[in-house]
Amino acid sequence: MKISGRSQVPAFAVMEVLAAANALRDSGRSVLNLCAGEPATGASEAVRRRAIDLLTAGDLGYTEAMGAPALRQAIADHYARWYDVEISPAQVAVTTGSSGGFMLAFLAAFDVGDRVALARPGYPAYRNILTSLGCEVVELDCGPETRYQPTVSQLQQAYYEGGLDGLIIASPANPTGTMLPADELAALAAWCEDFDVRLISDEIYHGITYGPDGLAAPGAGAATAAAYLGGGAVVVNSFSKYWAMTGWRLGWLLLPDDLVTPVDALAGNVALCPPALAQHAGTAAFSEEGYAAARENVEQYATSRRLVLDRLDELGWGPVAPADGAFYVYADVSRSGLDSVTWCARLLAETGVALTPGTDFDAVRGKDWVRLSFAAAPEVVAEAVDRIVAWQATLEGPSAT
Amino acid sequence: MKISGRSQVPAFAVMEVLAAANALRDSGRSVLNLCAGEPATGASEAVRRRAIDLLTAGDLGYTEAMGAPALRQAIADHYARWYDVEISPAQVAVTTGSSGGFMLAFLAAFDVGDRVALARPGYPAYRNILTSLGCEVVELDCGPETRYQPTVSQLQQAYYEGGLDGLIIASPANPTGTMLPADELAALAAWCEDFDVRLISDEIYHGITYGPDGLAAPGAGAATAAAYLGGGAVVVNSFSKYWAMTGWRLGWLLLPDDLVTPVDALAGNVALCPPALAQHAGTAAFSEEGYAAARENVEQYATSRRLVLDRLDELGWGPVAPADGAFYVYADVSRSGLDSVTWCARLLAETGVALTPGTDFDAVRGKDWVRLSFAAAPEVVAEAVDRIVAWQATLEGPSAT
Repeated sequence: MKISGRSQVPAFAVMEVLAAANALRDSGRSVLNLCAGEPATGASEAVRRRAIDLLTAGDLGYTEAMGAPALRQAIADHYARWYDVEISPAQVAVTTGSSGGFMLAFLAAFDVGDRVALARPGYPAYRNILTSLGCEVVELDCGPETRYQPTVSQLQQAYYEGGLDGLIIASPANPTGTMLPADELAALAAWCEDFDVRLISDEIYHGITYGPDGLAAPGAGAATAAAYLGGGAVVVNSFSKYWAMTGWRLGWLLLPDDLVTPVDALAGNVALCPPALAQHAGTAAFSEEGYAAARENVEQYATSRRLVLDRLDELGWGPVAPADGAFYVYADVSRSGLDSVTWCARLLAETGVALTPGTDFDAVRGKDWVRLSFAAAPEVVAEAVDRIVAWQATLEGPSAT
Repeated sequence: MKISGRSQVPAFAVMEVLAAANALRDSGRSVLNLCAGEPATGASEAVRRRAIDLLTAGDLGYTEAMGAPALRQAIADHYARWYDVEISPAQVAVTTGSSGGFMLAFLAAFDVGDRVALARPGYPAYRNILTSLGCEVVELDCGPETRYQPTVSQLQQAYYEGGLDGLIIASPANPTGTMLPADELAALAAWCEDFDVRLISDEIYHGITYGPDGLAAPGAGAATAAAYLGGGAVVVNSFSKYWAMTGWRLGWLLLPDDLVTPVDALAGNVALCPPALAQHAGTAAFSEEGYAAARENVEQYATSRRLVLDRLDELGWGPVAPADGAFYVYADVSRSGLDSVTWCARLLAETGVALTPGTDFDAVRGKDWVRLSFAAAPEVVAEAVDRIVAWQATLEGPSAT
């Protein structure tokens, strides 16, 4: 029987690494997981306590398709607090993680055959969701000269080559962690508005950013496209990273006025509503206690990041993307003489350290790159770096000479 | 700026009724909500207690994209218990409600332009998700002579008219509550296998069925397409109805072998994973205590159903679909002389009772029909019927003569 063509998305290499890591751990080996983009801490006490109180009182039922009103208000308030941007709760759509947000935003903005640009390297789900929806993905080859972020001149080229309907950006980005400077974001947003190209800005790593001193930057730390909703931009965000609530599947969209009604109609059909307990407990993420717990997590990432960056010489890797934010170091390991899939597989098998090969993020150059996630506890990250350094010294090939 | 054509899905009439009902309630009126398909009880103590224990111990993080292994096993065991059908946990995909299951099944099975048949009247999200994915919906006009369920001869006609790639069935169905007899299901499944048409069976109301005596039927009470996975069929189910866990957003798919890998790959991209707390707590739904609580709910629905059916003469409606299962009575109210949208709006405004107009479920005949949900508590249902009977007596028009 027929299987759809659009379901033929590439498998995530990280899932194979994870499965191998779990098998290794089950066999009794010491495994250090630096492959998943998942905070080690989990949701704050404030959120968990709220959830327990709610569950003790009873069950919750469906919420409105666009989310519980109190949470939509709390999210709007968050934009006043962090960005000094005024958002109406009516422009906030609570979603089932950023995944649910991307699905709704893509469905609302793009038709079959539409051309949507995004940076390579980049988060593979953008590409895979878009192609599964029948959109044409236009990959923009982004390198160190632009912090691996797209530029207006690339957009212009893509536009004149075949038209352009959308642009996905991410700052801080996954896998590189690099950020778009505020003036670059403004230029991209202005260009998109002028050319009727829908800008969708993934801001799930906002708040996880580092100053020039390497310390955790306060607040968002990155420029938000929320300032450009009036020009048609869409913002995607999530509770998974800054608030460390991965498994809760809770995120949000900020919508320009023209997409509010379409997203509302689609959300009821596609999702009914986001998880109700997560929504009602999620408001506690915006309490002072919730913000403080998240801030503590970021301080821990800053420590782990320092641990890695201070040993880059010892690691002897090639180019490393500037780790402006998020909890990733994206590095060129081609000096080893190994492709990154082999490099990761051997590293895991021989040392128990799991990293993600760049092939998940970049089909062209990813075979040279790996992503290290420092969302694990600092002592885990330190031990992992020790093992990587020792292992690399044992490698045959250019890096060992 | 452009909005996608595919986002132009019809708004749910029920959402307007709900908003009007909420506004009326906020104004101090006594409102009886018989419009939402939502059990009044919520999750069992067993599930909520498990969730509280988990939250007290810590947070959970992502699960595998296909769901937590223990829950996949528990779901497989459920098929042995209720249906005596052997399912491998590898064929179970845990999903974000049945909504997430439909999205994954449709993406995996159907491409842009594929033709998918479904019964009219029927659940509107099938149609709206399919059209948003670029599929062509083939509505099968189903009436009382087939319990509002599709037949092989209708499929044959659709097939010869333009080819057919899929069939969505639901038993018990929404809005009618009618069921497919086991032999009819077998015939549809055999035809689909012969003609390479993907059968997708919505079984979210299984367990909520009534015997000829009007009492709650034990176990599933309906034939499952799980017996036809070998022929390519897909089963969609959910914790929302039988286990009364609407807001938890938890469901599952049973997959034929050929769709396991595509759904796994799509799930990681489209959803990452279903809500983790719901998954880990959801295993408690399959405990003896969990089954017993669900069974008690169904006994309550049976009482409410009896309350409505016993007063059909007094209600004086036209044809009523046989309420085999689920918690709906779907009735023709055209004798009133009012279209169903007006009928529902006036009923709500004049009595505070909220029902759903059939226009959500049937674009052709829905203007004559309404759906009454008896998932509310029996005393609420009884009071609502009193008000409807009294209100109808005040109506001008054929029904009052």
